[in-house]
Amino acid sequence: MAQEISAAEQIATQFKEHSVAEFFKKNMQMLGLTGKIKALTTIVHEYVTNSLDACEEARILPDIEVQIKELGDEYYEITVKDNGPGMTRQTVGKALGQLLAGTKFHRMMQMRGQQGIGAAGATMLAQITTGKATQVITGTGSGKALSLDITVDPKKNEPKLANMVELGKTFQGTIIKAKFKGMKYVNSEQAPLEYLRRTAIANPHAQITLIEPSNQKTVFKRTLKEIPKQPLEMKPHPKGMNVDELITLAKYTDSKTVKTFLKNTFDRMGDKAADEIGKHVSFDMNKDPKQITWDEAEEIIKQFKNINFIAPRTDGLRPIGEDRITKSLTSIVKPEFSSVVTRKPTVYSGGFPFQIEVGIAYGGDAGKGGNTTNEEGVVEKKMEIMRFANRAPLLFDTGGCAITKAVQSIDWKRYNVKDVENAPITVFVNLVSVHIPYTGAGKQAISDEQEIMDELRLALMDSGRRAGAFIAGKKKEMEKKMKKELFFKFIPEIAAALEKITKEDRKKTEKNLEKLVLEKLKLEDESDEAQQIEEEIKEASEKVRKNEREAKKKKKEAEDEEVEE
Amino acid sequence: MAQEISAAEQIATQFKEHSVAEFFKKNMQMLGLTGKIKALTTIVHEYVTNSLDACEEARILPDIEVQIKELGDEYYEITVKDNGPGMTRQTVGKALGQLLAGTKFHRMMQMRGQQGIGAAGATMLAQITTGKATQVITGTGSGKALSLDITVDPKKNEPKLANMVELGKTFQGTIIKAKFKGMKYVNSEQAPLEYLRRTAIANPHAQITLIEPSNQKTVFKRTLKEIPKQPLEMKPHPKGMNVDELITLAKYTDSKTVKTFLKNTFDRMGDKAADEIGKHVSFDMNKDPKQITWDEAEEIIKQFKNINFIAPRTDGLRPIGEDRITKSLTSIVKPEFSSVVTRKPTVYSGGFPFQIEVGIAYGGDAGKGGNTTNEEGVVEKKMEIMRFANRAPLLFDTGGCAITKAVQSIDWKRYNVKDVENAPITVFVNLVSVHIPYTGAGKQAISDEQEIMDELRLALMDSGRRAGAFIAGKKKEMEKKMKKELFFKFIPEIAAALEKITKEDRKKTEKNLEKLVLEKLKLEDESDEAQQIEEEIKEASEKVRKNEREAKKKKKEAEDEEVEE
Repeated sequence: MAQEISAAEQIATQFKEHSVAEFFKKNMQMLGLTGKIKALTTIVHEYVTNSLDACEEARILPDIEVQIKELGDEYYEITVKDNGPGMTRQTVGKALGQLLAGTKFHRMMQMRGQQGIGAAGATMLAQITTGKATQVITGTGSGKALSLDITVDPKKNEPKLANMVELGKTFQGTIIKAKFKGMKYVNSEQAPLEYLRRTAIANPHAQITLIEPSNQKTVFKRTLKEIPKQPLEMKPHPKGMNVDELITLAKYTDSKTVKTFLKNTFDRMGDKAADEIGKHVSFDMNKDPKQITWDEAEEIIKQFKNINFIAPRTDGLRPIGEDRITKSLTSIVKPEFSSVVTRKPTVYSGGFPFQIEVGIAYGGDAGKGGNTTNEEGVVEKKMEIMRFANRAPLLFDTGGCAITKAVQSIDWKRYNVKDVENAPITVFVNLVSVHIPYTGAGKQAISDEQEIMDELRLALMDSGRRAGAFIAGKKKEMEKKMKKELFFKFIPEIAAALEKITKEDRKKTEKNLEKLVLEKLKLEDESDEAQQIEEEIKEASEKVRKNEREAKKKKKEAEDEEVEE
Repeated sequence: MAQEISAAEQIATQFKEHSVAEFFKKNMQMLGLTGKIKALTTIVHEYVTNSLDACEEARILPDIEVQIKELGDEYYEITVKDNGPGMTRQTVGKALGQLLAGTKFHRMMQMRGQQGIGAAGATMLAQITTGKATQVITGTGSGKALSLDITVDPKKNEPKLANMVELGKTFQGTIIKAKFKGMKYVNSEQAPLEYLRRTAIANPHAQITLIEPSNQKTVFKRTLKEIPKQPLEMKPHPKGMNVDELITLAKYTDSKTVKTFLKNTFDRMGDKAADEIGKHVSFDMNKDPKQITWDEAEEIIKQFKNINFIAPRTDGLRPIGEDRITKSLTSIVKPEFSSVVTRKPTVYSGGFPFQIEVGIAYGGDAGKGGNTTNEEGVVEKKMEIMRFANRAPLLFDTGGCAITKAVQSIDWKRYNVKDVENAPITVFVNLVSVHIPYTGAGKQAISDEQEIMDELRLALMDSGRRAGAFIAGKKKEMEKKMKKELFFKFIPEIAAALEKITKEDRKKTEKNLEKLVLEKLKLEDESDEAQQIEEEIKEASEKVRKNEREAKKKKKEAEDEEVEE
């Protein structure tokens, strides 16, 4: 009798394994590589961020030229040329022809790219839509430059190289030329021109040129001649570290004891902290870290939470800086007022240091729109949110982004903005981190991790408070001016009437009345100030209470864990 | 002299390759596995969809029990038990311990899961947060059941199996038990209870039980005793096929000629269509398909566009069906009116067949909220959108989803809904497809591909039109009633006044006046009807014009391509 095949065995015959390249090839939308306009912008984004990162690492002032040529209906060629360090024969294929390969994913360092997916995804898109390889010329400045064609073998997630030749001359930099079908070049808020404009805003040390299909050439000039300090490769911070990550780090360490492992691996971990941990754990700190158990690692993590470590080092992350953001906002949107806040670095889950910068610009050209007027002839403006992650602009999936959610969560009425959606406001937000928690591989939006949301809100409130004071002042000044004008208009009449009754000289009465009005308006100011001071005191004490609550909560968590063990 | 190391070589030393498991382990947010509430729901989702899929394939009426136990502060154990076909010794490890492995990714078949990422992602989350393996008991109904512990080796993206033992008895089904920290069980709209309620709505043939941490047991009873017909593994449809995909299919075919390859590979491709293609291409259709060039494949795709293929077969996809959606909506939200539309299958980019179902329920318990009343004592309702993909509920990333965008793009005022955001409306949308284009690996939202957006809008407008007619009728009826009451109130007074003037009997006048009012109200009806007919004619002719425009555009595209070559 033939053996019966069970349903499970039947299903098992269908079982297959797939490469990450096959997965993303079938799900190009996850890389931001679908949609006629979006795909074009995403490709420019991937190439330009790689160029900026490479220049930053090699300490070169970036000079990047992007050219987009229309080859036919919905058919374009994109060329990106940089003066970066170039790539070696060993790395160029993997950088552009293999997903999840690169220098960025495993390093705790602030970089624009971080996954090793984007550029290889673009290579796949070129070959899928046109059948053509991506052409690369790259040179390191010494030796002869290299020219080659790259495609991805999706089944294996491996690069296929062709036509590799050494050119007859040296060259420093990289030129990538690729063709794509199913795209559309337009001039919208989500198109390459706006993307590069925002890139220039956040990277004033870079010179960026765009040549559009119409041959229109736009140069975003370098406004800063020095290369910004290089972000440092950082160690994970003990706060936010989790047990699994600690064990993984312990497995790959060269250190021979748990104590040296902790000191060598973590930021802000000195002898004192290590000894303090040693006092509270049940095992010998001279133990081989590779032998550490889950329970032992849990003990260490518990101590990480109890000890007051200094916040992450501030020199590892590279915010744009308050001065430069102010300068950028002033030159772009010419606001009546702007307020910029760069917060101190802190840590989110996993021990990743991050830092928030917020700039709020009000009035002038701030806000979106301005081309239309409403029924009353007033120019209609809408709030504009400019989002950046490690200085790279985010243009898509606005609603799904922690930055947008944080802006929407603020009670702007408190800051004298009645209808924030329809106000002449530009909110500029930059998140810098050694690892940006993107919501997807397409890197279009930031996930709303609790610690990041908290910092975003604090920065927005801080900056919003100052902008609110200005707006309030502006409003009050206008009210005062109107009041003054109104009073002054009647003073001559009143004075004339009084003259008739009291025989008092009308000119003298006029002067007295004017003095009275001005004094009264000044008094109003003072009582407003008192109110503001009161409010600020209230806010500060709320903050303190919040910190206390959090400290209590953390303490309780630590205790709960104790109970669990 | 030591050779100088270039910046490129320096950077090259940092080059590394990473596994897809490492990638998602560091980016759990991309799998929907961060956030205390979201992660818990996502885990339940991954296990339950796998159970439903397996039962469907094995033709078993699903009986699924989900138990969530609270083990400590933010520490839970999730157990999911099904009566499915079970897994074999060969597949169980890969199914739960390796990313991108499974039976679903490569098959053109409507299934709830499709990536082979989710369940293995949950296994990783369990080991990351608790250090514990996921325990599995699985039996195929014959032979002895198997018990084992599974973890993922992230460096290699491979399963690690431990404690594998044969149990002393047979068992059919699978029990998965895993522990997670950093979660929170609450009863919100995005929590497991609501997730399972919606799953039951869209899968009336499944019996689903939830035991909450409080030991509260909820049983969503099976309301349909037959197993729905199994979705069929479909062939790609020629429309929407692209060149790259065609070449990939040709590379792996067993067919010996291009003609047989086309006939064997594609849906709706008979001798007639294949011969028609042969007439218009520059090469011999007896050519070995493995030898096909990019240009030749482009010629075939061009013919695919020119030929009028029949729409995808309707028996391959399995919509829920108009009757069952109506039944579900009636039983859940008890609306005053509901209108359900299941559209015919069509194709989106890549040749993937898909189909849209829309149900609109108005009044009754439809809409969200209902617990609050506004200042005037009226119950406040908000529109509710229930999104499904292949019958699996989507609870997160609402704003980023094509379904939400389509609903927001409709001009609801046309359908007599003034303020749709604040109306007692439930919009139920199910997208079925052999491949759902999710925006991310977390499968929370559908990407707004053009063809899908078009179909969503058509379905919403169709269903909305009918709901609108009901709402208009309801409104008119109310207006008429109010008018009638108003008129009738004055009739006795008028009649009395007339009696005084004309000596006409007041009772007779009253009757005449009443008749007059009723006739007038009826006349209003008729003129409304005429207007409605007029509008419908207008709409229909707009539709025809739109189709004509599209046909013209397609023809033009085909011509343009001709020019390009």
